[in-house]
Amino acid sequence: MTPTNRTKLSRLPKRGHHDTATIYPILDAGLVCHVSYQLDGQPFLIPTAYGRIDNTVYIHGSVGSHFFRQLAQGVPVCVAVTHVDGLVLARSAFSHSVNYRSVVLFGQTRLVDDPDEAWAALERITEHLMPGRWADTRPPSASEMKKTMVLAIEIEEASAKVRTGNVNDDPEDLDLPHWAGVVPVSLQYGQPIQDPIQSKDIAVPDYIASFKG
Amino acid sequence: MTPTNRTKLSRLPKRGHHDTATIYPILDAGLVCHVSYQLDGQPFLIPTAYGRIDNTVYIHGSVGSHFFRQLAQGVPVCVAVTHVDGLVLARSAFSHSVNYRSVVLFGQTRLVDDPDEAWAALERITEHLMPGRWADTRPPSASEMKKTMVLAIEIEEASAKVRTGNVNDDPEDLDLPHWAGVVPVSLQYGQPIQDPIQSKDIAVPDYIASFKG
Repeated sequence: MTPTNRTKLSRLPKRGHHDTATIYPILDAGLVCHVSYQLDGQPFLIPTAYGRIDNTVYIHGSVGSHFFRQLAQGVPVCVAVTHVDGLVLARSAFSHSVNYRSVVLFGQTRLVDDPDEAWAALERITEHLMPGRWADTRPPSASEMKKTMVLAIEIEEASAKVRTGNVNDDPEDLDLPHWAGVVPVSLQYGQPIQDPIQSKDIAVPDYIASFKG
Repeated sequence: MTPTNRTKLSRLPKRGHHDTATIYPILDAGLVCHVSYQLDGQPFLIPTAYGRIDNTVYIHGSVGSHFFRQLAQGVPVCVAVTHVDGLVLARSAFSHSVNYRSVVLFGQTRLVDDPDEAWAALERITEHLMPGRWADTRPPSASEMKKTMVLAIEIEEASAKVRTGNVNDDPEDLDLPHWAGVVPVSLQYGQPIQDPIQSKDIAVPDYIASFKG
């Protein structure tokens, strides 16, 4: 994707990437995205689940949602997915940083009215959260589909920013007595907790028990 | 804080909170926030570190940053902090959800030009990332302070949304054979990795070794 002024990085351009080989895996590794839009100059933000199919990000909400009704009209949005991978503790306060992977993308919302596309999007959003889950659920009924609004955001432009590695103190700070290094940060998935009213005869399926994100 | 149309929840109002006793701890538990602003109708998003002092959120960036220079002019922003606490796997696809805590707040950016306020903000941002760290670093020099832009966002209005607990399937789905429950999600802090060029005589301080987020 060719960067315009929306995504060109003015600072630390070596941290920037515009190729889908970098962007898509960062998108696919997230649990929630943040969607921003504006109304009369006032910016708004919605944290929400999502899923990607090819170059389109799908989100869904209730047809009764004030926010989703505004988005359904087809408006420019900016969407971000951010992972924190580490706290970078340098000898100097100034050189402190965070290891992270983030994608910021631009597009336009489109209300999905094709039932097949809406179905595929909901399947993807569910599979994005937990691969293998869609086939192991009661699929949406016609009335549930009517209550659900699906929005497509085709990625017009996107940039990824990635910081990895260790601290990067100035040479004159290297002999300071402050411990320096990185504290890794990651998402951890705990032991699944079964619905207490469900029979214990139903065991946790492998795709859930072995899920590592 | 009294909700206006910006933060009143049209859906699931029982998940909404407007009291600082709910809002501040959710803000304080985050590693990065997402800041959104708009320019000529185009929304933009910046994931960034932050810190809160009383009712003000502080962010910082390089004076060379295109984004921060735009924000420095004093513009309306929307800021979100989101924690995912669990994947809620219901028997029906429709009832799938996510356990989460999120805050969405509104305010106006203000360039901090008072050196004492800027210093206090940078201390808070560092302490937010790793409590105890500020006193164990080489503090910013005058020239580093000049390279750093600090922005204050006083919280004019904010809402928190929280979902906790187990699955909430429809009564008619309860006997379906699909495993149902919650997979807990949390941030995990790994073993600190020392800068390889630093002497091993400098041990990991307790405040880092015992940090749990």
